[in-house]
Amino acid sequence: MKLLRVGPAGAERPALLDAEGTLRDLSGVVPDIDGALLGDGAALARVRQAAEGGELPALDATGIRIGAPLGRIGKVVCIGLNYHGHAKETGAQIPAEPILFMKAPDTVVGPNDTVLVPRGSEKTDWEVELAIVIGRTVRYAQSDEEALAAVAGYAVSNDVSEREYQLERGGTWDKGKNCETFNPLGPWLVTADEIADPQALDLKLWVNGELKQQGNTGDQIFGVAEVVRYLSRFMTLYPGDVINTGTPAGVAMGHPDPKPYLRAGDVMELEIEGLGRQRQQLKPA
Amino acid sequence: MKLLRVGPAGAERPALLDAEGTLRDLSGVVPDIDGALLGDGAALARVRQAAEGGELPALDATGIRIGAPLGRIGKVVCIGLNYHGHAKETGAQIPAEPILFMKAPDTVVGPNDTVLVPRGSEKTDWEVELAIVIGRTVRYAQSDEEALAAVAGYAVSNDVSEREYQLERGGTWDKGKNCETFNPLGPWLVTADEIADPQALDLKLWVNGELKQQGNTGDQIFGVAEVVRYLSRFMTLYPGDVINTGTPAGVAMGHPDPKPYLRAGDVMELEIEGLGRQRQQLKPA
Repeated sequence: MKLLRVGPAGAERPALLDAEGTLRDLSGVVPDIDGALLGDGAALARVRQAAEGGELPALDATGIRIGAPLGRIGKVVCIGLNYHGHAKETGAQIPAEPILFMKAPDTVVGPNDTVLVPRGSEKTDWEVELAIVIGRTVRYAQSDEEALAAVAGYAVSNDVSEREYQLERGGTWDKGKNCETFNPLGPWLVTADEIADPQALDLKLWVNGELKQQGNTGDQIFGVAEVVRYLSRFMTLYPGDVINTGTPAGVAMGHPDPKPYLRAGDVMELEIEGLGRQRQQLKPA
Repeated sequence: MKLLRVGPAGAERPALLDAEGTLRDLSGVVPDIDGALLGDGAALARVRQAAEGGELPALDATGIRIGAPLGRIGKVVCIGLNYHGHAKETGAQIPAEPILFMKAPDTVVGPNDTVLVPRGSEKTDWEVELAIVIGRTVRYAQSDEEALAAVAGYAVSNDVSEREYQLERGGTWDKGKNCETFNPLGPWLVTADEIADPQALDLKLWVNGELKQQGNTGDQIFGVAEVVRYLSRFMTLYPGDVINTGTPAGVAMGHPDPKPYLRAGDVMELEIEGLGRQRQQLKPA
């Protein structure tokens, strides 16, 4: 299923994109798309039954805003340098184990919302990523199977980053990852059953129409199952948590000087096979 | 005011500790102690009026569990190496600007709840800290006054840390800061008007009755106003966010070998002048 949330920011309603591409209202079936829904097998079954029974009212998609496909996000955990190509372009060594950093849930915005360039920022950068959405509490997972069973679905994520703040201001990467609007997510939460192999998805990102990133999740150093299993040893993952699994090569930081960092007015477009497409314009904070 | 939340984990009710030390039920006045309350001047005024009018029913404190004094926490931002003494004991240079890392809100537990030693952990450590609770949205604060106006109050925080995960496993500090139960908070959220000078508070921490940390917030490298002002440049702070402002000298990592890291069965006690006292027993995860 393709689950989404539509309407004004902070007042989104749950919806579903059906097999014919029609937007369907889910608000009569569940109150929201969130961890409570994803962790509730019976509620998910009701959604599926309603979708398959053709009983969901169509929504007029004209001009409708799409929000992030998940409400009440608990935490956003990110994996750094997780593609061979990206590790190479940044001059970093291949990590021996997953590198972890965090974004606050309040950085998450809709897939087509404005992204704000922080005041004084000179190094705002893009990162198309496969996001994992957790649907079952998992701690100390003992196997890849157990880890994958905790995955409710996937979404497109833009792990927007300010490289000066991340790398040149002391401390950890978090300083350049938590500016407001720095995590567009969506358009859809695609349930895991629709993704035959999460390690075989093409990812692309364009800036002002020019293709900047083109990768495949098959280039990930640590795949989805390993990431979830590894993380569950250091923290408990709960329904409604999100994991950004790293970005392929092609970020601004990886370019020769002068690096093409983002400026107000620029437009980012992102796409992952089967997970939909995002478009954000940059404006000054 | 001393605001708190009492009752079973996940089902706490709002309460207030009055000037005579009597626990008072706030659930007839406000639904919870959270960002929504702290950001609502009228609601806070109702609480204050009810407290001063003596109209709040007393609660029987016998055997009652105290939860974290804040529900629906948005994010927990932490400042690293923020005391001259602690920077010295870890062999680190005095940071030129605040070091920032993050804990997930789901690590927060009550002040006397069990803390779990992660499976396989050999280096679980303590950190008594002054926590700031945000009550007003603040971005790009232009002055210390604007920053302080966003502070709703203060609380005792234990920034429990696993040093191997934090420092020896690749990546950022977050890996050793986000194990479940790693952030006891409370007992009280003390409103800012009761803290005459946040840079003149004694902090103490004992392990198994032995005094391990004894510091004063006057030894902070970056004080409360500067921390809030600085952070607001890199992220927007919202009502219900928490900032752990760093720990004074005396953590296990700062001891000569063999370092006295925590083991199941150990007991931590923490106290900050005017903010109350915590006590946690460690158990295996």
